[in-house]
Amino acid sequence: MDLKALVRLQESLSKLPSIGKKSAERMAFAMLEMEDEDLNEFADAIKELKTKIHICPICGNITEDDECYICKDDSRDRETILVVSSPKDVIAFENAEGYHGLYHVLGGTISISKGKGIEDLNISSLLKRVEENNIKEVIIATNPTVDGETTALYLAKLLENKGANVTRLAYGLPMGGNLDYADALTLAKAIEGRRKI
Amino acid sequence: MDLKALVRLQESLSKLPSIGKKSAERMAFAMLEMEDEDLNEFADAIKELKTKIHICPICGNITEDDECYICKDDSRDRETILVVSSPKDVIAFENAEGYHGLYHVLGGTISISKGKGIEDLNISSLLKRVEENNIKEVIIATNPTVDGETTALYLAKLLENKGANVTRLAYGLPMGGNLDYADALTLAKAIEGRRKI
Repeated sequence: MDLKALVRLQESLSKLPSIGKKSAERMAFAMLEMEDEDLNEFADAIKELKTKIHICPICGNITEDDECYICKDDSRDRETILVVSSPKDVIAFENAEGYHGLYHVLGGTISISKGKGIEDLNISSLLKRVEENNIKEVIIATNPTVDGETTALYLAKLLENKGANVTRLAYGLPMGGNLDYADALTLAKAIEGRRKI
Repeated sequence: MDLKALVRLQESLSKLPSIGKKSAERMAFAMLEMEDEDLNEFADAIKELKTKIHICPICGNITEDDECYICKDDSRDRETILVVSSPKDVIAFENAEGYHGLYHVLGGTISISKGKGIEDLNISSLLKRVEENNIKEVIIATNPTVDGETTALYLAKLLENKGANVTRLAYGLPMGGNLDYADALTLAKAIEGRRKI
């Protein structure tokens, strides 16, 4: 084949999550049929991504302003911080609309397999925030995985005696889920965490 | 949210085939974590796509040269033309490795629903090629859909008395497929086209 430009684009596309060789090929061909205007817009959006977006110096979330819109919002409960591993998690909680406090984004979790340690995470600024801002509660909302749990336990330890209650999200059955499909560990956690009705 | 750059990229990503809102979001976040180098390469690959790739003036396939590599290849059977609707189909046949003649890419099919008529397709150059190059056989390989069939019948009509045999791909059961899963029309075509063994 003499289509280097197409192959080059396919290679970039296949770096996207869950895009295999076949999907990348289909996408590249679809892009060949797109309007020039749409393609230029696409390329510009990619180029602009990292120049416009940076990390909020307060909470570690991504933002285009000097501080993120949540940190700037005075109507939020400023005595509670929910700690997540990535900016995606902030969006998930914001979409769920059940939380009105502040966030802190770690930028990952402690991970032995990925060689990610404490120093790679946005932890020292969390400790500083808790100490300096009269925070009443820190909710640790890392994923319920080995790495997420390790990170949660480590944070809980660091946050001892800082004056804030440290809590963890509840484990149990997902809403709308089916008992049959729940794994054994989730069921065990659901029984362990049972509440009076 | 204050992330216009991210939303902008999501909008471009969701124009790709079979990428919904959720996938576009996941991709955009993944791209935030990519190396700058990979992102620049991605954007450049998009920008380069249409400037490098154009249509082969002989067969209508896509190419980066003045003529495509198949039209230039003297080792191929130059008396047979396989007519397909898109450049993707050429790649499919080339990967299957069973065909060694030339191609002609229509750039679509006649489609009433999409308002695509004869004048939008690369047909006149096909007629000219057949007339001028002593072509012995034209194999029409448009898709077995209503539009593909319409186009095939129309082409067959136009190619009458041009000196070439006009044939159509065989219909029947897909190899490796399962009789149970074949639709009624395919089964009917498989019986209709049965051959002595």
